[in-house]
Amino acid sequence: MKENKYDEKEFFVEYGKMNRSIGGLAAAGEWQAFQKLLPELTGKTVLDLGCGYGWHCRYAIEHGASSVVGVDLSERMLAEAKARTTDPRITYVRRAIEDIEFSPESFDLIISSLAFHYVESLDAVYTILYRILKNEGDLVFSVEHPIFTAYGNQDWVYEENGNKLHWPVDRYFSEGQREAIFLGQRVIKYHRTLTTYLHALVAHGFSIRDVIEPVPAPEMVDAKEGVHDELRRPMMLLVAAHKPGVS
Amino acid sequence: MKENKYDEKEFFVEYGKMNRSIGGLAAAGEWQAFQKLLPELTGKTVLDLGCGYGWHCRYAIEHGASSVVGVDLSERMLAEAKARTTDPRITYVRRAIEDIEFSPESFDLIISSLAFHYVESLDAVYTILYRILKNEGDLVFSVEHPIFTAYGNQDWVYEENGNKLHWPVDRYFSEGQREAIFLGQRVIKYHRTLTTYLHALVAHGFSIRDVIEPVPAPEMVDAKEGVHDELRRPMMLLVAAHKPGVS
Repeated sequence: MKENKYDEKEFFVEYGKMNRSIGGLAAAGEWQAFQKLLPELTGKTVLDLGCGYGWHCRYAIEHGASSVVGVDLSERMLAEAKARTTDPRITYVRRAIEDIEFSPESFDLIISSLAFHYVESLDAVYTILYRILKNEGDLVFSVEHPIFTAYGNQDWVYEENGNKLHWPVDRYFSEGQREAIFLGQRVIKYHRTLTTYLHALVAHGFSIRDVIEPVPAPEMVDAKEGVHDELRRPMMLLVAAHKPGVS
Repeated sequence: MKENKYDEKEFFVEYGKMNRSIGGLAAAGEWQAFQKLLPELTGKTVLDLGCGYGWHCRYAIEHGASSVVGVDLSERMLAEAKARTTDPRITYVRRAIEDIEFSPESFDLIISSLAFHYVESLDAVYTILYRILKNEGDLVFSVEHPIFTAYGNQDWVYEENGNKLHWPVDRYFSEGQREAIFLGQRVIKYHRTLTTYLHALVAHGFSIRDVIEPVPAPEMVDAKEGVHDELRRPMMLLVAAHKPGVS
C-alpha cells in the first residue's frame, strides 16, 4: 500500500501553511535553480510527477507548453490544483508515481519536484520514465539530498543548550525506508545514495545533463532558522537528465 | 606555496605502509569501480595527475595505451614510480597539478586518483584539462567525497565508550581548506560540494558520463575497521566526464 499522507486532513492542513504552499514557486528556495535546469518549454508535452497544487503544471503552460499532465496520489492536492486553474491543456491524474501508465514516447519533458523520495523503487520509475519519454526528451527532478535522508530522523545533533552541533550521517549505503517527523507527523521516506540517483540514470540509458545542490536565496529562508543553517548541509539535490536520440 | 606533504620523509614512510602502497591497485578499495569507468585504452595517450607510485600509469601501458605522462609534485613519489618501471612509453613530470603545461588536445584520457582534493582551484584545473584533452576525450577521477571532507577533521563522532555514533557534516557549502589528520600528521585538503565537482564540469563544456560512490569489497577493508563502517558514510566519489566532439 502506498502511503498517502497528503490525504490525511491534519497533515494536509499543515502542508498548506508552508511558505511554498502559500507563495508557490517564488517561495520555494530551490525554484530558481530548478527553473534553470528546465529546457525551452514552447510546444512541449509535459508530465509532472507529484504535482501537488499544480504550480509546475501552470508554469509550464504559461511558458508555452502545449499540454501538461499532473500526477498526484492525493485527492486533496488535486482538488487544490483544479481550484487554481481550469485551463483545458492541463490534465490531472490521481495515481501513485510507480503506477502511471502512458504510451511510449508520450512526453518531451518529465518533471518531478520533491516526490521521488516517497517512491520505494526508483529503478521501476526510471524504467517507466525512459519508456514514456520521447527521444531527445528531458527529465528534471528534485529530491531530498542523500546527506539529508541517510540518518533518517532529518534533524541536527544538538548541544545540551539547544545549539545545533552538526548534521549526522549514518547508514548511507543502507538504502530504504526512513521515518522522519515532517509537519508534526511521522512520514515514511526512502533514502538512496547519490550513486543510485545518478548512476542508475546512466544504467537506464539516460545521460546526466546537470547536477545542482541549491542554496536558497537569503530572502527565501525562514527567518527563525536563518540562511546560515541551510549552508551547513545540503537539503536538496536537483538533477537534469536527457534521453538521447536514436543514433 | 603548494603543500608537498609527500616529500616529507616521515609522512612518505607512513604512506608506504598503507595497503594501497604495498599492494597497488588490487589493494585499493575503489579500484574495481574506477577501472569500470575507464574507456578502452588501446592506442590512447594518457595523462595521470597525482600519479604517486605510478600504478595507474603502468596499468594504462599494460592495457594498450600508446604513451602515458605521470605528474606528481613529490620527488619521492616519482622516484618510487621510476624504480618500478623503465618503460620508455611512460614519462614522469614533477609538477603541481595546477601548473601543468601541455599543448591543446594532447591527451585521449586524463585520469586522477585521489588528488583533486589537494588542489586549491578546481576551476583552474578543469579549464586546463578541457584544453589539453582531445575532442571525444575522457576524464576519469576519484576524490574524497564531499560528505567525507565537509566537516574537516575526517573522523567520526564517538560515544564516551569509543563507539562510533555517526559521521558529522557541517560547513558543507563553505568550500575551502580543511585540516585533517592523515597518517598521523596534519594535512591540508580542500572541501568542495558535489555541485562544484559535477556542475562545474558541465559549465566547462564537459558532459558527465557517470558518477559512482564506491563501496570497497569486503576483502579490501582493514580488518580492524570492518566493512560495516565503510557502509555508514561514503568516503570517495568517482566521476567520469567526456569532452564532446565538434558538432
